[in-house]
Amino acid sequence: MSAVFSSQQAQAASPQACRQRIRNNEWQAPTAGLAPGAVQANLMILPKPLADEFLLFCQRNPKPCPLLAVTEPGEYTVPSMADDLDIRNDVPRYRVWKHGELVDEPTSIANVWRDDLVSFLIGCSFSFEEALLAEGIDVRHISEGVNVPMYRTNIATTPTRSLSGPMVVSMRPLKARDAIRAVQITSRFPAVHGTPVHIGDPALIGIQNIHQPDYGDAVTIHDDELPVFWACGVTPQSVIDTVKPAFSITHAPGHMLITDVPNTQLAAL
Amino acid sequence: MSAVFSSQQAQAASPQACRQRIRNNEWQAPTAGLAPGAVQANLMILPKPLADEFLLFCQRNPKPCPLLAVTEPGEYTVPSMADDLDIRNDVPRYRVWKHGELVDEPTSIANVWRDDLVSFLIGCSFSFEEALLAEGIDVRHISEGVNVPMYRTNIATTPTRSLSGPMVVSMRPLKARDAIRAVQITSRFPAVHGTPVHIGDPALIGIQNIHQPDYGDAVTIHDDELPVFWACGVTPQSVIDTVKPAFSITHAPGHMLITDVPNTQLAAL
Repeated sequence: MSAVFSSQQAQAASPQACRQRIRNNEWQAPTAGLAPGAVQANLMILPKPLADEFLLFCQRNPKPCPLLAVTEPGEYTVPSMADDLDIRNDVPRYRVWKHGELVDEPTSIANVWRDDLVSFLIGCSFSFEEALLAEGIDVRHISEGVNVPMYRTNIATTPTRSLSGPMVVSMRPLKARDAIRAVQITSRFPAVHGTPVHIGDPALIGIQNIHQPDYGDAVTIHDDELPVFWACGVTPQSVIDTVKPAFSITHAPGHMLITDVPNTQLAAL
Repeated sequence: MSAVFSSQQAQAASPQACRQRIRNNEWQAPTAGLAPGAVQANLMILPKPLADEFLLFCQRNPKPCPLLAVTEPGEYTVPSMADDLDIRNDVPRYRVWKHGELVDEPTSIANVWRDDLVSFLIGCSFSFEEALLAEGIDVRHISEGVNVPMYRTNIATTPTRSLSGPMVVSMRPLKARDAIRAVQITSRFPAVHGTPVHIGDPALIGIQNIHQPDYGDAVTIHDDELPVFWACGVTPQSVIDTVKPAFSITHAPGHMLITDVPNTQLAAL
């Protein structure tokens, strides 16, 4: 077995093999295209009791924060998503936040783990991209080999007493007929953001420059294409920026937690 | 305006008019058929901090406990569901529980209201019955004019640290072709229990006598029909029976909270 873990090998690998390589620090890059067919999750980790309030925030904001699983305090396994999954080591790059400031981007959080930490696994749009590709729709950041472009918007989330922040969206440029079909396809996937939140003029949702995403990479948009925007699981990071909790951990955008759950299991129909 | 509120008048009435009559104690019966087209909700009320854990229980059990809204502690209005809604007075009959014992079935809970009470509005199968009727499917308890039959099963819910209990289901007898179509139709309504949890032999889910429901009324089942079972929002009452919390309030089965939200708004497609 090679110590090198090329992009091609990653894409051919099973979810278990991908997690093992990530755990061994042999993969520290974005996870798009890894473990085809397997659900990947956004991660938000908060201490009790703020975690209780974040659970309510997710209930009120199911489009950006569709919950796949929530752990008990201190638990770092999630048997419902994968038998061997270790939340502390199975994300290629984490972000550790203190009072809203990014203080570290480690490849493991085992050394900062605490018994009061609750983990939220949040659905990711990667799960519906497979269904778009299967219908011959070009998913631009995949065909251009970059991270999906993500933007902060002026769309307010529904707040709780102390949690609020603007919605983050991901964008895929599509021809009109593909945009219409994409609405149909993604409506089948409410657990991974569901239908788009906006189509067309980026300025209407507060995006000043579509070519300068706030997270991820810019992609080509052709003249006959509409930008189509989906609610994004990076939204908790805009909540962190807004309310500046004392301590929190997330994944780095695009660097997801790979599970054993098949994407098809998330389809509502 | 007559002081009498007949069944026919109720069914013609708007959600606002129905709530007003219920608030004035002019309607204390089950709410099936009232305010056609409007979402009706199951109700679970718990004090903090147990409410925090019940929110997690709902996240882990979306089929019996699909959340339509969750209030802040002490709040008895829910503007997202109806401007004038008053949780303390707008259910025709409540159940007050102490240590798992049913201690009262009042028509108002204003006199036992507390600042630490959190209300959970949980989707109700009445919302998808309209879609079944629209396709010409006979919904037996409606055609027989009784409350829907509900049963405790041996299907375990997914527990949290201190909350657990068997799933309660509602049952509608259907011919095979209608059962198949009903799976399709109800899969569009994940917010009101979604697809059935069982079709056929009641004994397989621990129901000993299909003619003796644990809640609601028995209905006729013809020889060419299958009993079809959906997860039910009365499940929190089996949780109360199992874990016996010090204090809780629910609706009486079938006596729902009527909202202004249209049923069609809950359709996923």
